[in-house]
Amino acid sequence: MGGEAEKWVLMVTARTPTNIAVIKYWGKRDETLILPINDSISVTLDPSHLCTTTTVSVSPSFDQDRMWLNGKEISLQGGRFQSCLREIRARAQDVEDKKKGIKINKEDWQKLNLHIASYNNFPTAAGLASSAAGLACLVFSLAKLMNLKEDNSQLSAIARQGSGSACRSLYGGFVKWCMGKEENGSDSLAVQLADEKHWDELVIIIAVVSARQKETSSTSGMRDTVETSALIEHRAKEVVPKRITEMEGAIQNRDFATFARLACTDSNQFHAVCLDTYPPIFYMNDTSHRIISCVEKWNRAEETPQVAYTFDAGPNAVMIARNRKTAALLLQRLLYNFPPQSDTDLDSYIIGDKSILQDAGIKDMKDVEALTAPPEVKDKIPTQKSKGDVSYFICTRPGGGPVVLSDETHALLDPLTGLPK
Amino acid sequence: MGGEAEKWVLMVTARTPTNIAVIKYWGKRDETLILPINDSISVTLDPSHLCTTTTVSVSPSFDQDRMWLNGKEISLQGGRFQSCLREIRARAQDVEDKKKGIKINKEDWQKLNLHIASYNNFPTAAGLASSAAGLACLVFSLAKLMNLKEDNSQLSAIARQGSGSACRSLYGGFVKWCMGKEENGSDSLAVQLADEKHWDELVIIIAVVSARQKETSSTSGMRDTVETSALIEHRAKEVVPKRITEMEGAIQNRDFATFARLACTDSNQFHAVCLDTYPPIFYMNDTSHRIISCVEKWNRAEETPQVAYTFDAGPNAVMIARNRKTAALLLQRLLYNFPPQSDTDLDSYIIGDKSILQDAGIKDMKDVEALTAPPEVKDKIPTQKSKGDVSYFICTRPGGGPVVLSDETHALLDPLTGLPK
Repeated sequence: MGGEAEKWVLMVTARTPTNIAVIKYWGKRDETLILPINDSISVTLDPSHLCTTTTVSVSPSFDQDRMWLNGKEISLQGGRFQSCLREIRARAQDVEDKKKGIKINKEDWQKLNLHIASYNNFPTAAGLASSAAGLACLVFSLAKLMNLKEDNSQLSAIARQGSGSACRSLYGGFVKWCMGKEENGSDSLAVQLADEKHWDELVIIIAVVSARQKETSSTSGMRDTVETSALIEHRAKEVVPKRITEMEGAIQNRDFATFARLACTDSNQFHAVCLDTYPPIFYMNDTSHRIISCVEKWNRAEETPQVAYTFDAGPNAVMIARNRKTAALLLQRLLYNFPPQSDTDLDSYIIGDKSILQDAGIKDMKDVEALTAPPEVKDKIPTQKSKGDVSYFICTRPGGGPVVLSDETHALLDPLTGLPK
Repeated sequence: MGGEAEKWVLMVTARTPTNIAVIKYWGKRDETLILPINDSISVTLDPSHLCTTTTVSVSPSFDQDRMWLNGKEISLQGGRFQSCLREIRARAQDVEDKKKGIKINKEDWQKLNLHIASYNNFPTAAGLASSAAGLACLVFSLAKLMNLKEDNSQLSAIARQGSGSACRSLYGGFVKWCMGKEENGSDSLAVQLADEKHWDELVIIIAVVSARQKETSSTSGMRDTVETSALIEHRAKEVVPKRITEMEGAIQNRDFATFARLACTDSNQFHAVCLDTYPPIFYMNDTSHRIISCVEKWNRAEETPQVAYTFDAGPNAVMIARNRKTAALLLQRLLYNFPPQSDTDLDSYIIGDKSILQDAGIKDMKDVEALTAPPEVKDKIPTQKSKGDVSYFICTRPGGGPVVLSDETHALLDPLTGLPK
């Protein structure tokens, strides 16, 4: 260890995407190691719209490990954080920063304390897999700081121990979490099926749905499902393995019809086993159901799927459109059925890639009000439009994996004090 | 055939209950004969609150079969009506009414036309199994008119061909529909497990929930489930048979805890396979979910189930309380969470057996407004009470099977003309 009188601070900042499963993970076979009962497949979302940025720093002047999330200090005592920190420190290597005159020997990492600051560019409470992006970013940035030799797939097995679905955020594009067979979980990790350029036509629209009820956490929810559902074992053993193979093929061949059918049916089946849990778990609400009906009606009318939908452990809809043209048509339908509340402006109602709005020919609220029922709606009886059922929409696309942000302006910690800026 | 110049009218009036399945029927193995993929078990509801009354009449002066439902003429051309009429006529016997001087030989029934009038003492569109009670009543009353030798179980196999669940309305109390093995459906019929006196403590409260969306008919819904759900076969073959055996034991032993657990989990699983259907079917809505949460929270707090719930192909909740005392406590909770709209009076909001309301200490709307949160609600934050989410409640109990109403004042047809009174 060295440096000017132990006053140095060494830090790394990284950005990691969130991901949405299209073949769902629900149920663990090992609660501590976080080993799942089936493989899952996800699409990584563009980090320009949804991501976590994390700065990790080390200094001999830090007297304990500390962490700040969105500017607020949080405890690192949880077993999941501790698992990740332990696993990473165990793999730490020698680090040398000649410019700053810092040298850390690998055995020093056990004694050095860390400061960590993390920030989500989207509301944490919105049910948008913030913990997946967060844990993945923690593991990725610490691995860079401590000079780990492990590749992203091996890192994913560490991130998995922080939050199961976090392992899938170590790659961009299309990612498979292989459940693995080993008891120690060493082969339960993520692999990339294809990068984001492989199928770059896809457009993703997320409806952030206003929830009335407090939701069951996914950790306790999936435990209850494994313990009480009479259908979950059949799903994990008989249904999912076939769907995984089919979904890999659909992604390989950019076969949207198969991709959409599998994504929709697997999302529905995940919610079905939640309902088959005792007591039952409801993540989707009436608004979620209406979004599904809107998409299904359109897909049927077109005779081939235009849009896939998938819902995680909450009422938000993630819709994947086959291309930009379809996405614009989808946005028209969504705005027709779910207009914003009168005091909401369009600019805060549609966020992310606003160019889809232009493609849809919508410039302002007058254009929204002028929307007419889509052709697939046969009975032209105006449907009940409850303004405010959707909080806002995010337009995005499949995106890339974790990256180090070398420009120090992105750092969330002060390079001199190691405290939040 | 005889009588004064062919001007006679012979008629029979009968009343048949509706029923609610506690182990659900969902899925046919034969669409025409209406043969199910699993056994089901139901509770017959007290006909004083929910029933169909049907008058069937025959006269040589009728020139065609005709039917009136709730005063409005409807077509008898549907395959299901025709199946029932054909099966009953094939079993018709000689009938003699010496007082009226009428004699019908069994072969005459093929030529004689019928007039049928049917009336539900509850809203047909409310999703309260009106077709079950209706078809059962049609078959039962025609069987009496035509002097059939078949017992109610054999008649149930005819009613089944009109509407599957109708077969369970041929008995009071607790009824099992045995799926049968024969290709011709002859052994797919209802048997009584216990009559309504066997377990006479039970009290039933039905919440008629306001629906926003048009529902999928159960006929097309269950066909779609059988064709597309990856879970329905496992349910029918592996899960239900065990539950049937357990439920028979629970009814035999008046074991409410087991009865409630099975009824709730089986209702939830039925809705789970609906959700696993493609496109998915949603019968429960947010109000249904809130009713379940309310009951589950209370059951957990009491450590042993106080109330079972079950939902058919719609958002209405059927709740079965272990006894009158529990029913009164349930009604307080329901009225606290789901108060009537300001313009609704209590007398039309709680219908059926209003004595439960007295047991609950509620005399007027002031008592409803004075209700406080039940002890199991820990965070005393007032929950969002949307007045009008429930249209009304029906208080009832398990009840008896079909009966002939010999008092002619109950007849729905004029004894001279054979036309609706």
